Amino acid sequence: MSDIKVGIIMGSQSDWPTMREAATVLDELGVPYETRIVSAHRTPDRLWDYGKTAVDRGLHVIIAGAGGAAHLPGMMASKTRVPVIGVPVQTRALSGVDSLYSIVQMPKGFPVATMAIGAAGAANAGLMAAGILAISDAALAARLDDWRTALSASIPEVPTDD
Amino acid sequence: MSDIKVGIIMGSQSDWPTMREAATVLDELGVPYETRIVSAHRTPDRLWDYGKTAVDRGLHVIIAGAGGAAHLPGMMASKTRVPVIGVPVQTRALSGVDSLYSIVQMPKGFPVATMAIGAAGAANAGLMAAGILAISDAALAARLDDWRTALSASIPEVPTDD
Amino acid sequence: MSDIKVGIIMGSQSDWPTMREAATVLDELGVPYETRIVSAHRTPDRLWDYGKTAVDRGLHVIIAGAGGAAHLPGMMASKTRVPVIGVPVQTRALSGVDSLYSIVQMPKGFPVATMAIGAAGAANAGLMAAGILAISDAALAARLDDWRTALSASIPEVPTDD
Amino acid sequence: MSDIKVGIIMGSQSDWPTMREAATVLDELGVPYETRIVSAHRTPDRLWDYGKTAVDRGLHVIIAGAGGAAHLPGMMASKTRVPVIGVPVQTRALSGVDSLYSIVQMPKGFPVATMAIGAAGAANAGLMAAGILAISDAALAARLDDWRTALSASIPEVPTDD
Amino acid sequence: MSDIKVGIIMGSQSDWPTMREAATVLDELGVPYETRIVSAHRTPDRLWDYGKTAVDRGLHVIIAGAGGAAHLPGMMASKTRVPVIGVPVQTRALSGVDSLYSIVQMPKGFPVATMAIGAAGAANAGLMAAGILAISDAALAARLDDWRTALSASIPEVPTDD
Amino acid sequence: MSDIKVGIIMGSQSDWPTMREAATVLDELGVPYETRIVSAHRTPDRLWDYGKTAVDRGLHVIIAGAGGAAHLPGMMASKTRVPVIGVPVQTRALSGVDSLYSIVQMPKGFPVATMAIGAAGAANAGLMAAGILAISDAALAARLDDWRTALSASIPEVPTDD
Amino acid sequence: MSDIKVGIIMGSQSDWPTMREAATVLDELGVPYETRIVSAHRTPDRLWDYGKTAVDRGLHVIIAGAGGAAHLPGMMASKTRVPVIGVPVQTRALSGVDSLYSIVQMPKGFPVATMAIGAAGAANAGLMAAGILAISDAALAARLDDWRTALSASIPEVPTDD
Amino acid sequence: MSDIKVGIIMGSQSDWPTMREAATVLDELGVPYETRIVSAHRTPDRLWDYGKTAVDRGLHVIIAGAGGAAHLPGMMASKTRVPVIGVPVQTRALSGVDSLYSIVQMPKGFPVATMAIGAAGAANAGLMAAGILAISDAALAARLDDWRTALSASIPEVPTDD
Repeated sequence: MSDIKVGIIMGSQSDWPTMREAATVLDELGVPYETRIVSAHRTPDRLWDYGKTAVDRGLHVIIAGAGGAAHLPGMMASKTRVPVIGVPVQTRALSGVDSLYSIVQMPKGFPVATMAIGAAGAANAGLMAAGILAISDAALAARLDDWRTALSASIPEVPTDD
Repeated sequence: MSDIKVGIIMGSQSDWPTMREAATVLDELGVPYETRIVSAHRTPDRLWDYGKTAVDRGLHVIIAGAGGAAHLPGMMASKTRVPVIGVPVQTRALSGVDSLYSIVQMPKGFPVATMAIGAAGAANAGLMAAGILAISDAALAARLDDWRTALSASIPEVPTDD
Repeated sequence: MSDIKVGIIMGSQSDWPTMREAATVLDELGVPYETRIVSAHRTPDRLWDYGKTAVDRGLHVIIAGAGGAAHLPGMMASKTRVPVIGVPVQTRALSGVDSLYSIVQMPKGFPVATMAIGAAGAANAGLMAAGILAISDAALAARLDDWRTALSASIPEVPTDD
Repeated sequence: MSDIKVGIIMGSQSDWPTMREAATVLDELGVPYETRIVSAHRTPDRLWDYGKTAVDRGLHVIIAGAGGAAHLPGMMASKTRVPVIGVPVQTRALSGVDSLYSIVQMPKGFPVATMAIGAAGAANAGLMAAGILAISDAALAARLDDWRTALSASIPEVPTDD
Repeated sequence: MSDIKVGIIMGSQSDWPTMREAATVLDELGVPYETRIVSAHRTPDRLWDYGKTAVDRGLHVIIAGAGGAAHLPGMMASKTRVPVIGVPVQTRALSGVDSLYSIVQMPKGFPVATMAIGAAGAANAGLMAAGILAISDAALAARLDDWRTALSASIPEVPTDD
Repeated sequence: MSDIKVGIIMGSQSDWPTMREAATVLDELGVPYETRIVSAHRTPDRLWDYGKTAVDRGLHVIIAGAGGAAHLPGMMASKTRVPVIGVPVQTRALSGVDSLYSIVQMPKGFPVATMAIGAAGAANAGLMAAGILAISDAALAARLDDWRTALSASIPEVPTDD
Repeated sequence: MSDIKVGIIMGSQSDWPTMREAATVLDELGVPYETRIVSAHRTPDRLWDYGKTAVDRGLHVIIAGAGGAAHLPGMMASKTRVPVIGVPVQTRALSGVDSLYSIVQMPKGFPVATMAIGAAGAANAGLMAAGILAISDAALAARLDDWRTALSASIPEVPTDD
Repeated sequence: MSDIKVGIIMGSQSDWPTMREAATVLDELGVPYETRIVSAHRTPDRLWDYGKTAVDRGLHVIIAGAGGAAHLPGMMASKTRVPVIGVPVQTRALSGVDSLYSIVQMPKGFPVATMAIGAAGAANAGLMAAGILAISDAALAARLDDWRTALSASIPEVPTDD
């Protein structure tokens, strides 16, 4: 079993500029992860395999980003009990409302922990994954607390014109 | 190979009151069909099997109804080249806009022939299936023409108060 | 009767950059087609003629793209039993939600097989047309299978930064 | 040429409870009218005939109500220069937003004078028709002024609990 | 009484690039008009005066464009029985859906003939005004028929790549 | 000058069941008020008069409720500098989104302090009015503090099944 | 430190019929939990205390349900690193779209794991909480697997009319 | 107690280009103010302190701008009885509809005086604040009247092409 506990998957290469935000946050928090392109529609067998082996491969959290009829997070949630965090990628015509509805409106039985549309949502997926891992990892919990403290400390008191 | 060329599938028993409209239309047109509950999330392996065997079992069209994060039509379209007609089932909070977006906004490669939300859409799925089969079935084409003619003929010229 | 079985029609020249995606896919699959501008509002008689002669001219599928109050696909569906695939073209103010609703929300009797908004929808219209023709054309079915296999094979396993 | 100058048409009998509001207002204003069911999809030839003969039959205004993919008002506007007033009928899943977008988002060349969704819109269609006729009918103008004055006078100054 | 029968009014100078489309169409049809900036909120007294004198000044149609909480068309409709055509101007945040709802959802008593959002809607407002005037102006009716015929004739049969 | 500092106005009697919530809150806080039906469209002169005399009559806050193309709050804001609080009344077809957009999307120069759609918004309009008056009324400020404290104190710690 | 690792909190007693679904699922899975009413607006200090003590009290997951301007989940996420699962409660005017946007659109730094609107979302919140705890609790993981297997096994193959 | 009666707060530095419009209007009206970055999520304690001390510090109005899950205005309203004016900042994916819903849909007890999305809303927040202060400040009332008069006077009668 690998020590990689977080898998970042996405429906296509074009989702990577968004999903990279999740990777960046995990890097900052010292959480190792893997990245994969797993298309629900174009590579359904890859999805099946990824889901079926997730527990045995030691994954604790899966971050899944997709846009449009974004079936990847929900289908992954149906294939494994490993918690799935969904990131709705912004789309051209519907701005990601299609992605959001396709990811969040899951039926009873198969939750997807849905984040905000776009890059902020991807960053937060990384933080949510870290928060889940931190439940049983005191060192990570401390790093996450520090990250949060630093974020708060970075906010100036007064807005500036430039 | 069976002589059943149309499969009507749906995500749950609760979709049947909607999807029955498709069955009724096919009955009226003398088109045999099968009905199955195939949940993308609760019975993904059933979806897999249904999709993988669709061509060999002689299915020519699949009608798939689902609500909410309605992944069934799109996932079926990813598993078989048999044309998939999608019916967005109306939902409680979002009235089926979630179902519609999840079904219609498919990425390049995997079309779902999306119908209107709810019962009218299900009836039209039956008609669309019949129209596809009628391309190479002159008798069905004639019955479909008759069905359409009868529908037009049933429209009164003047509205009546009761 | 011509050997052209697919008609690609659109409401105006400005829809062509979108609808060309359908043509490109049909080219890739070796499916001959014709292209026509048929405006429901500006050339209603052209629409009437196209619909009335579609069966006799040997058309098996009609792909119709339109934007805004996109009446072309639905009106064509009312004039012929030939299956109509609708493509909602993206619009300036409403991003194609107007096109989508005008095309998909057809009343019982006249289905339009609605695709996603914009270019992906147009490409999928070509694939749906090919899927319908492939029911009775084994060679095309094989080419379509190959096209789908190639699409799946083109997906890399891991996202790359450039 | 008849002295009926207003045609009230609608897509189906089920639109009549809404469209009756237009008729009631025209009754109150002493404006004669005819009522017809003209379905864009089920009776397209009836639509064609109605549009083509509208000028010769002496119609000055056409009020057209429809729901869902509400093509009737726009198609009528394409067939005649007689001003068309469109009434979006409320629908079950989308509350008439589909009707509204299908009616109002007409392309350049074919305006539809769109009213509010539902019964208030139908009543206003009657008033708009009367306002158009009143341009060249001083007696009707006076009755319309009276109707408006009476409406204003009917508003109490203070709300009451019962 | 002037021979100007159409007033084009708008909420602000920034609406002019949209509303100019109405003026252009009226120019093409040989219909004289006046243009005014009448802000419902910034110049309410100007609105009052314009509405109160509209009949006496010989206006037959008022075209009113506005964006956001677009109160101008509806308030004008409350001040005069002269038919008011409303043009929802596209807005930055809500793309003109705010303008559309504010204009079209008028209560019983005060119709606004609402056009499409943006430039196409403004052009159509000009055509609708011409159509109303053409009821009692045979020469204008002929010019309008010609305009429509020319529009239809301008549509090529086949789309071209450049 | 009266000692009534708050005017509650609404577009029609049918808005009173919603707007009564504002009155109830003001009763609870011991703030006197008047109630009036002032329809922007049906009684525009009443609106004009109310707005023009508001300052002189000693009104400090105006609460205005309306539904649909809800022009009352915004038009009142254009006629007086007295702060206007707007309450979007829920509507049948669009659930009050039309009311909300028509009230909140005011152009620069004429703010309307918009509350939530429906009864909660009306109650909050009463609280906002009280909060504004409390700036210079220490006794009212104390009563408002007590009201808020009582609300907080009324929240049980644990939910109960009945 | 208690052995209760899941807190179910909600903005008001009226949210309990929805949130009870989360409790029911946790009961079925043998996961102890506490329930609290914590209103972001009415009891902000209670929110503060709950968030500040969450880690020390041994909470591993917080499920937070709220409707409208649903600030509870996001504010709780700002006060503790314990993962927060958000449930958008359906609302009267906006059907829970307001709740959904207020919960899911969190800025970078403070993720809320958002579930579907309404009862299905609440049930899924329970399952997501269980899935998170199951990462380090093999017995719970087995029970969760069994629950999922039973759900899948409960789906009939064919829909039935009654 | 300071003579600064208006606090302009915002969730982040990135809101300042929007919120500066409020400051500019207050400058024009000669109303002193302070500006602060107070993030509901990143600096919740700062929010708490600001709210708890607002009355004692002599603030009469608080203008709060935020985007996305915009909790700042509502949370501030829960911490102080000082009237809070909320400005929904435009967002990338949802154009500020998320901000609007999160700010305006407050539950009974905690009103936020919500302005239009974006810069016009921010400017109007300044005017609303001035209008509130003007109730008990005759000099400011006169300046506000002048500001409004100048705005009206600046509107040309006829639009110009340039």
